[in-house]
Amino acid sequence: MRVSELVAASGVPLATVKYYLREGLLMPGKSTSATQSSYGEAHLERLALIKALAGVGLPIERIRTVLALIEHPEQSLFESLGCAIAALPPYLDESTSSEFPRAEAALIKLGQVYDPRFVAVAQLERALRAAEDVGIPMTDERLEVYGRHVRGIAEYDLALMPEAVEDAVPYAVLGTAIYEPIITAMRRLAHQDIASPSNHSHDEADERHEQ
Amino acid sequence: MRVSELVAASGVPLATVKYYLREGLLMPGKSTSATQSSYGEAHLERLALIKALAGVGLPIERIRTVLALIEHPEQSLFESLGCAIAALPPYLDESTSSEFPRAEAALIKLGQVYDPRFVAVAQLERALRAAEDVGIPMTDERLEVYGRHVRGIAEYDLALMPEAVEDAVPYAVLGTAIYEPIITAMRRLAHQDIASPSNHSHDEADERHEQ
Repeated sequence: MRVSELVAASGVPLATVKYYLREGLLMPGKSTSATQSSYGEAHLERLALIKALAGVGLPIERIRTVLALIEHPEQSLFESLGCAIAALPPYLDESTSSEFPRAEAALIKLGQVYDPRFVAVAQLERALRAAEDVGIPMTDERLEVYGRHVRGIAEYDLALMPEAVEDAVPYAVLGTAIYEPIITAMRRLAHQDIASPSNHSHDEADERHEQ
Repeated sequence: MRVSELVAASGVPLATVKYYLREGLLMPGKSTSATQSSYGEAHLERLALIKALAGVGLPIERIRTVLALIEHPEQSLFESLGCAIAALPPYLDESTSSEFPRAEAALIKLGQVYDPRFVAVAQLERALRAAEDVGIPMTDERLEVYGRHVRGIAEYDLALMPEAVEDAVPYAVLGTAIYEPIITAMRRLAHQDIASPSNHSHDEADERHEQ
């Protein structure tokens, strides 16, 4: 297809397509004349992936990292996944300490690998410190309950992960990012459902409303 | 205590304390002379709460809303909690549609209350649409698995909620906001733990590494 058809089929504006071509994120089309190139399914798929990665908040350099992991899978799948997930926001200050005492203690209690190179370790440390600061610190009991349920979700996610690295990396990056706001919105709605006076599983004393 | 002592004890800068006083978020101290006032424990507690609410991303007008809910609990606790949670980010465009077909279908499948006035309904709708856009749409099975585990977390949260409105509202607002990044970081770390080649519960065929 011509570039105008690629624009129409992908929904990505021409200027953006040209930018991705210049930056090397989108591979060049096949030259059909001095001024025209022809594009195919691979270009459409690549544009959809770039668009999705940009949509979950990755800046151009992070998108490049993820694409390189897919194109050059020199590492084990596990290492590729780690690098890919590390490309996701939130991006913490480079000045962040390399000591993560709260996260380390939590992971040991959960019986999980503690590896300070995992970017999410710094994220967990910062979030646990914030919980202390507002006076609702993580307790052993809460950690156990959260840990059990979060692991149930994570096991389901992993069970559905494609095996090939070129499919697994986008699934992991997009699935991680895109389902985080779904999980947090579902938790808020579960709170409201459980607290609702019309919820009959709730304390009878609260049932002041007839409607 | 004098205002300088309030600044030292709270860790909130003098200019910010004065701003909160001017805005009426912090109640005035007791005048001890024409130029001095005396502050007590209630001021310290209020400053800590304002600081915590600002720390989870609430702008000044939203902080005012939460404080008003605590000071004037004219509504039922359930209604106060709903208004308080609605003060939390993310803030969606006012132009957001009032139709939430994906969120409605999901809540019906989960057997939960569907009330489009809950701000989290619009959040869920937007997040579910984003999942479709990147090609990993929510399925009935994933919804069932996520729903069960998210409800387990939410039930634990609610079981620990204080009963008095002046304690329940800050617990709900801060607990909702502050534990979201903890849950998302825990999910990323559970993914890495489950996928790790050194994890012996994992598929033996993947155990290529000796270290």
